[in-house]
Amino acid sequence: MSVITVGTMAFDAIETPFGKVDKIVGGSATYVAYAASNFITPVQQISIVGYDFPKEEMDELKVRGVEMDGVEIVPDKKSFFWSGKYHIDMNTRDTLVTDLNVLADFNPIVPDSYQGAEFLMLGNLMPKIQMNVIDQLKVRPKLIVLDTMNFWMEIAMDDLKEVLKKIDVLLVNDGEARQLSGEVSLVKAAKAILKMGPQFLIIKKGEHGALLFHGEHVFFAPALPLEDVFDPTGAGDTFAGGFIGYLAKTKDISFENMKTAIIVGSAMASFCVEKFGPERLKELTREDIDARLNEFVQLVNFDIDLV
Amino acid sequence: MSVITVGTMAFDAIETPFGKVDKIVGGSATYVAYAASNFITPVQQISIVGYDFPKEEMDELKVRGVEMDGVEIVPDKKSFFWSGKYHIDMNTRDTLVTDLNVLADFNPIVPDSYQGAEFLMLGNLMPKIQMNVIDQLKVRPKLIVLDTMNFWMEIAMDDLKEVLKKIDVLLVNDGEARQLSGEVSLVKAAKAILKMGPQFLIIKKGEHGALLFHGEHVFFAPALPLEDVFDPTGAGDTFAGGFIGYLAKTKDISFENMKTAIIVGSAMASFCVEKFGPERLKELTREDIDARLNEFVQLVNFDIDLV
Repeated sequence: MSVITVGTMAFDAIETPFGKVDKIVGGSATYVAYAASNFITPVQQISIVGYDFPKEEMDELKVRGVEMDGVEIVPDKKSFFWSGKYHIDMNTRDTLVTDLNVLADFNPIVPDSYQGAEFLMLGNLMPKIQMNVIDQLKVRPKLIVLDTMNFWMEIAMDDLKEVLKKIDVLLVNDGEARQLSGEVSLVKAAKAILKMGPQFLIIKKGEHGALLFHGEHVFFAPALPLEDVFDPTGAGDTFAGGFIGYLAKTKDISFENMKTAIIVGSAMASFCVEKFGPERLKELTREDIDARLNEFVQLVNFDIDLV
Repeated sequence: MSVITVGTMAFDAIETPFGKVDKIVGGSATYVAYAASNFITPVQQISIVGYDFPKEEMDELKVRGVEMDGVEIVPDKKSFFWSGKYHIDMNTRDTLVTDLNVLADFNPIVPDSYQGAEFLMLGNLMPKIQMNVIDQLKVRPKLIVLDTMNFWMEIAMDDLKEVLKKIDVLLVNDGEARQLSGEVSLVKAAKAILKMGPQFLIIKKGEHGALLFHGEHVFFAPALPLEDVFDPTGAGDTFAGGFIGYLAKTKDISFENMKTAIIVGSAMASFCVEKFGPERLKELTREDIDARLNEFVQLVNFDIDLV
């Protein structure tokens, strides 16, 4: 059982009300890998980096069971760089800088050694690139999860709709669900999106939790109320990594098990925001994760005898 | 076992993206009574109305076990009137008209027949009026729940802080929790507010659910994702009515039982928003309520073997 994860490995500069960092490792595939590798190995990375991406970071990921055969290293270019500043409420941010660098030429090649993977996590990338990866797989994975964003809805909606037909689980936030569907009500938005291809839809609402839709069913996972959200960067990717990692570990892609997988994703995301970048994810022990999952059980469990 | 509920009985004019009504019965005590009387009787109402408040509405409430001895009818004045217009997202609204009318003279008198009530629901009113009701009770109720709003924090914060020392459960929304505490983080806000008097704090987040804080414990109840939120007016009061009604019915004010009571409150609120005013609440059967509670169980229940 293995998980292929496709996405960016990058540098971020982040400013939040709690501090700033000028350069920290980031990227969607980085966060997915750090989260998923707690549950399943190997995680098979597909990404592109420049000469400046730290070898120590690659080594740290490898130690955790993340394979790097699919990570192209471009010797004469810099890694993708993103810089953003969060507002006081931490729910919104301004992008200050986006230097594509190596990402402008990203043409992912699936290594032969990755063929046969049963889980595929397509991070937020140009829909044509996401489709290209699906097309290279000789055996369709058991589960394809796709992340995307409003930007692609604005400039590549047709391509996005094509790739939606090929996937099983779509991950978007509430604004993106509304944009993709043209519906204000999230329930109506979900019904419309589930007709576009995916059997499952996860709508992320940041500090307000996440909703999972499947047919007529809906499940809600809260975000853990935290004293301080230090840095939300990567929380969505960490959520995705925990989600797919748990599904791969348990080899069960039923709606019932996806409920638990979303709680696991939410738990991993709740760690991510506690420090800048992926720092907190690197420290985690199995005991930390179990304790956090237990907090989620306490947070939502109740007893009722129908009245 | 009885519940005293103190608040407004009024007329509302409401405009939402789905329609408008020029005059419909409303008021915090009206909604509390319609919700709570599904679980406990008598509900002992304390309010004030004008000559124009419909006798049929009073009769409908009486049939449900709502006592009206504490409702003053002023023969030469009109009932309190509020008019508001909701924005497209239904989370925000503009108040268009507030005609206090009889409410300007509201000086609630607790009838002798209400003395000994074990539960007291103090709807959103001037803090001095809330305190006045507490002071009239010869035996302190087992549980005092208080609703308030930002307006009183702005013009009567000292009075509000005095009444907070006398109550058990405070109900506010997220913005009000931040304003009352001066903290942005809701977890920090809750810690600060729990030092002001109440042992329990419920922070309502509208479509994003509600949080219950008690000591170091926290519980989260989602709002039911609905296709259409037709009219949010009264949802908070209906939530309060379901909450205190369930607690009174079960005679258990432990944190564990409050978790369930918040789910019951959320279920009642989910009905309230389906039609204008309290219309939907009037139609409900026991079976409707049980079915809705079961939807909440499905919405949040998950199984996990710690990983």
